Amino acid sequence: MVHTMSLIHDDLPAMDNDDYRRGQLTNHKVYGEDVAVLAGDALLTYAFEHIASQTSGAPPQQVLKVIADLAKAVGAAGLVGGQIVDLASEGKEIDEQTLTYIHMHKTAALLEVSVTAGATLAGADQSVIERLKRYAQRIGLAFQIVDDVLDITSTSEALGKSVGKDVAVQKATYPRLWGLEESQRKAQELVDQAISELDGFEARSQPLIAIARYITARTY
Amino acid sequence: MVHTMSLIHDDLPAMDNDDYRRGQLTNHKVYGEDVAVLAGDALLTYAFEHIASQTSGAPPQQVLKVIADLAKAVGAAGLVGGQIVDLASEGKEIDEQTLTYIHMHKTAALLEVSVTAGATLAGADQSVIERLKRYAQRIGLAFQIVDDVLDITSTSEALGKSVGKDVAVQKATYPRLWGLEESQRKAQELVDQAISELDGFEARSQPLIAIARYITARTY
Repeated sequence: MVHTMSLIHDDLPAMDNDDYRRGQLTNHKVYGEDVAVLAGDALLTYAFEHIASQTSGAPPQQVLKVIADLAKAVGAAGLVGGQIVDLASEGKEIDEQTLTYIHMHKTAALLEVSVTAGATLAGADQSVIERLKRYAQRIGLAFQIVDDVLDITSTSEALGKSVGKDVAVQKATYPRLWGLEESQRKAQELVDQAISELDGFEARSQPLIAIARYITARTY
Repeated sequence: MVHTMSLIHDDLPAMDNDDYRRGQLTNHKVYGEDVAVLAGDALLTYAFEHIASQTSGAPPQQVLKVIADLAKAVGAAGLVGGQIVDLASEGKEIDEQTLTYIHMHKTAALLEVSVTAGATLAGADQSVIERLKRYAQRIGLAFQIVDDVLDITSTSEALGKSVGKDVAVQKATYPRLWGLEESQRKAQELVDQAISELDGFEARSQPLIAIARYITARTY
């Protein structure tokens, strides 16, 4: 729900101004900008309502921890903060450190809480949670690198959204900093590092390994 | 925080398109629409982070209840829902029932959870919470009636925001439905009813009585 909110607001004319998302007209193209702002607000809010009222079988204290973690991942210290730096960087030359800051906040932070929430609710050891965090940060960054690469190598038909826009608006991207080939190599390296964080989790970690592998395997 | 988020988003060009709020340029006029959308998102999120991580001295289960109540008051079944009906009603003739629906959701729902949150955290009886809800609904509706009246009778200097806009955009308001005098009478009646809900709460209810009286006393 938080992800969908962020995409609806991200697509707004004042932000990325995207007309298509997953092959469909974006929310504001169909319902208008006013409704799109409100739909994003409602979905963001509903995420917290859902967790607070529908989480059973976990101690309330752990549920509160997940709510605080999610809020931190979305707010000024997370997704919103990354987006602000991203907007402020458009048209400027930025270094690798700034680009990584943007994506660790815009993309990886929400993945991090998505991956750790279950462990937190189950009362996992802090060491396990730290390993899951590193796993999520690495696949988050790899996802963004691949996203940047696909914006150059894929088609809008395959992706269901506009392509070539990053270059057009001179957006800072990994392929621009490193070139395509090195970007692909780094994404694979991050995925391998992510998977190595799961060593010893055995069969339970299979879905997380599959998700990590999918990051670099996807072509759209 | 939720209130400030809703005002930042409410002032956006796609929504009410207001340049001034409390005598200051609105967020998007100073920082741009992109930042205003994100600032609203961050504040909304921070409200949940704050409650989840900074509420001490109350059982976690009650804190979760307040989070769920707040989310419901803000989301599609609350503030956002009221705003959607409000937007859909612009330029149309609407009846008293629809207007009351709008304001019970846009204004009163957030006041309701603001008033009941403390009682919920303190483990108050459901009967007490119900009386506080009715108190909040009545002052919420009274506040909106007075707001509509002031849009006609006050000046933009006194209010710190534009006036006369409701009439200009043919917005449905209480003065339009009932006339000015009857609107003022109903607002006072609602305030009196709100205060009567507090009978028997004794000295502890003084601040709530003062807030209720302020609703009809304010001139800006």
